[in-house]
Amino acid sequence: MKLNRVGHFLLISFILCSFSLSIYSDEGMWVYNNLPKKILKEKYQFDVTDAWSDHLMKSSVRFNSGGSGSFISSTGLVLTNHHVGSGMLQKISTPEHDYYKDGFYARTQADERPAMDLELNQLVSIEDVTERVNTAVKPGMTAEQANTARKKAMGQIETESFEKTGLRSDVITLYNGGQYQLYRFKRYTDVRLVFAPEFGIAFFGGDPDNFEYPRYDLDMCIFRVYEDGKPAKIEHYLKWSEKGAIDGELIFVSGHPGSTSRMLTVAAFEFLRDLRIPYHLSYLLRQEVLLQQYSSLGEEQARRAKNLLFSIQNSRKVYDGRMKGLQEPSLMQAKQKTEYQLRAMVEKDPNLKELAGAWQKIAEAQVTARKNYIKRTLLEAGQGFNSVLFSIARTLVRMADEDLKPNDERLPEYRAPARPSLELQLYSDAPIYEDFEEVKLSDSLSRLVSIFGENHSLVRAVLQGQSPQARAAALIKGSTLKNPDVRRLLASGGKKAIDSSYDPLIMLAKLVDPAARKIRKTYEEKVTEVERQSYAQIAKALFAIHGTNQYPDATFTLRLSFGQVKGYTEDGKHVPSMTTIGGAFEHELKHSAKEPWKLPESWHLKKKDLDLSTPFDFVSTADIIGGNSGSPVVNRDGELVGLIFDGNIQSLISDYFYTDEQNRAISVHSSTMREAMQKIYGAEALVTEIGK
Amino acid sequence: MKLNRVGHFLLISFILCSFSLSIYSDEGMWVYNNLPKKILKEKYQFDVTDAWSDHLMKSSVRFNSGGSGSFISSTGLVLTNHHVGSGMLQKISTPEHDYYKDGFYARTQADERPAMDLELNQLVSIEDVTERVNTAVKPGMTAEQANTARKKAMGQIETESFEKTGLRSDVITLYNGGQYQLYRFKRYTDVRLVFAPEFGIAFFGGDPDNFEYPRYDLDMCIFRVYEDGKPAKIEHYLKWSEKGAIDGELIFVSGHPGSTSRMLTVAAFEFLRDLRIPYHLSYLLRQEVLLQQYSSLGEEQARRAKNLLFSIQNSRKVYDGRMKGLQEPSLMQAKQKTEYQLRAMVEKDPNLKELAGAWQKIAEAQVTARKNYIKRTLLEAGQGFNSVLFSIARTLVRMADEDLKPNDERLPEYRAPARPSLELQLYSDAPIYEDFEEVKLSDSLSRLVSIFGENHSLVRAVLQGQSPQARAAALIKGSTLKNPDVRRLLASGGKKAIDSSYDPLIMLAKLVDPAARKIRKTYEEKVTEVERQSYAQIAKALFAIHGTNQYPDATFTLRLSFGQVKGYTEDGKHVPSMTTIGGAFEHELKHSAKEPWKLPESWHLKKKDLDLSTPFDFVSTADIIGGNSGSPVVNRDGELVGLIFDGNIQSLISDYFYTDEQNRAISVHSSTMREAMQKIYGAEALVTEIGK
Repeated sequence: MKLNRVGHFLLISFILCSFSLSIYSDEGMWVYNNLPKKILKEKYQFDVTDAWSDHLMKSSVRFNSGGSGSFISSTGLVLTNHHVGSGMLQKISTPEHDYYKDGFYARTQADERPAMDLELNQLVSIEDVTERVNTAVKPGMTAEQANTARKKAMGQIETESFEKTGLRSDVITLYNGGQYQLYRFKRYTDVRLVFAPEFGIAFFGGDPDNFEYPRYDLDMCIFRVYEDGKPAKIEHYLKWSEKGAIDGELIFVSGHPGSTSRMLTVAAFEFLRDLRIPYHLSYLLRQEVLLQQYSSLGEEQARRAKNLLFSIQNSRKVYDGRMKGLQEPSLMQAKQKTEYQLRAMVEKDPNLKELAGAWQKIAEAQVTARKNYIKRTLLEAGQGFNSVLFSIARTLVRMADEDLKPNDERLPEYRAPARPSLELQLYSDAPIYEDFEEVKLSDSLSRLVSIFGENHSLVRAVLQGQSPQARAAALIKGSTLKNPDVRRLLASGGKKAIDSSYDPLIMLAKLVDPAARKIRKTYEEKVTEVERQSYAQIAKALFAIHGTNQYPDATFTLRLSFGQVKGYTEDGKHVPSMTTIGGAFEHELKHSAKEPWKLPESWHLKKKDLDLSTPFDFVSTADIIGGNSGSPVVNRDGELVGLIFDGNIQSLISDYFYTDEQNRAISVHSSTMREAMQKIYGAEALVTEIGK
Repeated sequence: MKLNRVGHFLLISFILCSFSLSIYSDEGMWVYNNLPKKILKEKYQFDVTDAWSDHLMKSSVRFNSGGSGSFISSTGLVLTNHHVGSGMLQKISTPEHDYYKDGFYARTQADERPAMDLELNQLVSIEDVTERVNTAVKPGMTAEQANTARKKAMGQIETESFEKTGLRSDVITLYNGGQYQLYRFKRYTDVRLVFAPEFGIAFFGGDPDNFEYPRYDLDMCIFRVYEDGKPAKIEHYLKWSEKGAIDGELIFVSGHPGSTSRMLTVAAFEFLRDLRIPYHLSYLLRQEVLLQQYSSLGEEQARRAKNLLFSIQNSRKVYDGRMKGLQEPSLMQAKQKTEYQLRAMVEKDPNLKELAGAWQKIAEAQVTARKNYIKRTLLEAGQGFNSVLFSIARTLVRMADEDLKPNDERLPEYRAPARPSLELQLYSDAPIYEDFEEVKLSDSLSRLVSIFGENHSLVRAVLQGQSPQARAAALIKGSTLKNPDVRRLLASGGKKAIDSSYDPLIMLAKLVDPAARKIRKTYEEKVTEVERQSYAQIAKALFAIHGTNQYPDATFTLRLSFGQVKGYTEDGKHVPSMTTIGGAFEHELKHSAKEPWKLPESWHLKKKDLDLSTPFDFVSTADIIGGNSGSPVVNRDGELVGLIFDGNIQSLISDYFYTDEQNRAISVHSSTMREAMQKIYGAEALVTEIGK
């Protein structure tokens, strides 16, 4: 990221005058049961058929680790990003074999390496349940009652569906409360690693090049899903395009954008700008330096912290970009104008007038959010106890309590339909390094004390008269939760086992839980539920005025985006849409082959065999955001032409606003993936299997 | 710094039961007119003679850039740390000649490179002016009146002395208000660089090894002071010891510890723990990542940011260590106990009883400090406008206003005695890089907005409807203050020139100045003056109970520390006091010669000539802190045996507490300095000149 670039966001404001979508924009993360057929027809003369979209939907998969992917063969092969598979690459690596750094290729199925706690979800059906969820909330209910009733109804729908179909069933909230949809997923939990290139080419240019363009990253990774110990038979998968993406052509992205905030009101934006984003930015900066310090202790420590450090650095850039966007006056003014216009229309229309109070209610909820957000983040989101071992302890403690309740009164993540995914994580064999956990826990406790104050009663109870460092050491060293068998034993013993456990982390989780649950409840009732009800009213108004052809904010559920392969203009210069393999070698030379601009040995060895003119990475106007990593890029024929892995720096504000002026999604070109697998990694067999 | 080390501070608490000094401790940063003669006699059988101490005092120099040094020849040679000279090394470097990185040696006097704005001060006399300062404050005066009267009296004393002697004359506040002393300094402003080794050996081990031990750093640098264009003739200078420091021997450190907080009350400690330290830590973390990002843009950017980045990383470690100390319950408990005992003694003693209100007054001042500290830091200390160009603008604007007032009513830094030093800085030719200034200013403006809020009237006036980035770009690009001649012209034009200037940074400084002056005044009157009066009372009580043989908290004025060359025990293992040159090569090997553990080429080339058993760095129990960097270490005979450059990680709490259990000062051994100059750098002539 270039820190000294100014004025990225200056040209955008005029575009944002209305919530309605211009047919000239490639904006939108569309749900599969409400695709932008009219826009695609009018702008691109493309007809979306049910067969086309059903095939693409079912070829798409979601990674529970937070990314997207696609089936690319009938034999269960799944393509995603290296940085989506990186958590797993880190987990299976050891001081002796660092697959994360050195790459991996299984020449036979027997060599494929099981991923410990990876779960892939394939969306198989969507059903609108808005009415059922909303009728559970009776007029005159308090926010507390409404929250309980709504949660219960959602739980019942999920459980009924799960019992009926055996499929993972999630009720998804869309339009921040405007719609509720039942998504059913087929789960794949036997996932094995087939192929990954070296870190040095997957993330060529590293943190300095992250969110930059031009780029030269082979950010790919291939898994295979198994069922009953055999490669799963996949009906819907993507064919590999012969030519790959072509400049100017219409492309589609099918993936799982994590979250956007475009529908938010001005008051909610101000909350982000004034509190949430700066708060998290400051946390990320602290984490980044902490992990750098830990990494500097030695190569093995650097290996242990690597994946987390890169993820933190990535987030820091995202938050920095968001902060810049929110501090850009023209953007906030455009937002204010849009909101003003919509509110004026609502107030004028006798049929909509009753919805006019929604904005004020949201503004009031932000006041409550400001008071409770940090406490919720520290206690309920666990930022004050930053260790995977604490998360495990928390899950065990809560599971014991929740299991005593009827299924649909439990916290959603402990209900039957979510249980298999929860247990996959809870009993994971992923390595846990005590010294690393201690460093993170110690620092987060120190921060907790600084924020809450030494005399806070919970803080005193947590520290037990010790310093944060000494306490963290005692907690980590004294716990046996590192061992998955201990977790299983505690879980199977239920409430009684938890109540009588002297494991220091279990005791800590028990100590913190009442306060954590309380702040969660307060926040859900006084903020989230109020927002749901109010945004539902705003959505109603929007649908009435602009029609239902609107896409909802992203929710880490499957969406279709579209756009063109297209360069852009930056600082007066044209940035072409595509780079080439030859360009990667030039980029290395330009940086004197210094880290992180050092191409792997394998690339230099095989350089003579490569077609240097092969397109490497490319940009498109498709509207994406974090969570889309690993999404397939397909052409009109539904063939795979690329693999999303990043956005450019101008796209960092797309949490709030989209414009196709400079905002670009960055993909690996399908041709370079094939070229590298064949000529560099000797994965001819894999290339042959793909698309079959 | 090892982040996973726990319990450094656990053994210390029993030592801290009283303010009185045990003769068994090497504690203390003693003023030259109140040296610990009795302790030295009883513990070390050493007699401090006036000739001995006068010679050492006058051989010591202070660097205005924030460090210490000593004269080492009659021909004006001055020894200090590489990291004290680094600001100057950075300033004289260019993209073509990076002396900071590659080192420098002037074979002839004609080759010596002038330092642009370096000023060296040699303390020549001390005079007690407590009574005159205190009698200016009449009984019944409000804190505001007292502050004004005290400042005026101090100003009059300084100006009288300056006019009488021509020497820089500073009234120093000791014991946080218990004493006022007039220090007179001879100024040296023609300072030239003679010798510096490569950065790679001066800071071998870099940030990871910083504050660690064992160490292998040749953190040295030699300047020469000139008068009238010729090498200054120096009467008092240190002879170079033949053998250098010897394990177990008594040594002395004469230097300028910057500040300590040992006398502070519990309430003042809590203010540090709860607000000041975490606030600055968070700022340092933000700066660190910002500078890393800027540095990653290219080698030239890395060169520009290097000195500041290392300084920020160093401070971050210091603050991190302080935070850990303040969060260690046993330390705070010891502090509470000490204070409780002293207060009890004061209340019991009819002669002291009238002093008993001091602690409560300090506690009340902390409440005011909490409310105003951040605002003061952002506006008055300029953290909200982080650019040297803004500092220049601020100085010009204030100078124009202050010059209209009688001399002793001005802000102290604008009075006649301080003026030459101020102008040296203001008109410095040191290079200023626009892009770098823009990056820093942009980020600090963004942070200012986040802290004050978008709707703060001053923030709105500062930003003028622009984003922090766009505003910073306009300010830096639009200003002509980069040119020292422009500054001279503006300064000579006085108030009229400033009032009619349209330079955007001058206009910004004018805009901010009323609010900055206001918060400074509030803080001085409601916090600093109240503290001065109250600490004066506490000092009175301390002197009455424990005698006047107490050292005051550090104030960046000359102090004498003492101790033994002595190893320590860490994690059950003995750490010997000395390392060797051979150890440096082993340390490099242990880290696979990776940065920052890569010895310079020159060391490998000359390895065969070196005596590998030469002592390299050593530790001692001398009580030092930041500001002592570059202090000479001398033996009983006043010969130079070493050069202070760091403290170990256990010394990081010495801002608050000293213990010689593990707390160690780290020095370069005199023998390695000589060995390297002679055999590696071919500086035989320099070695011959030293001590002559």
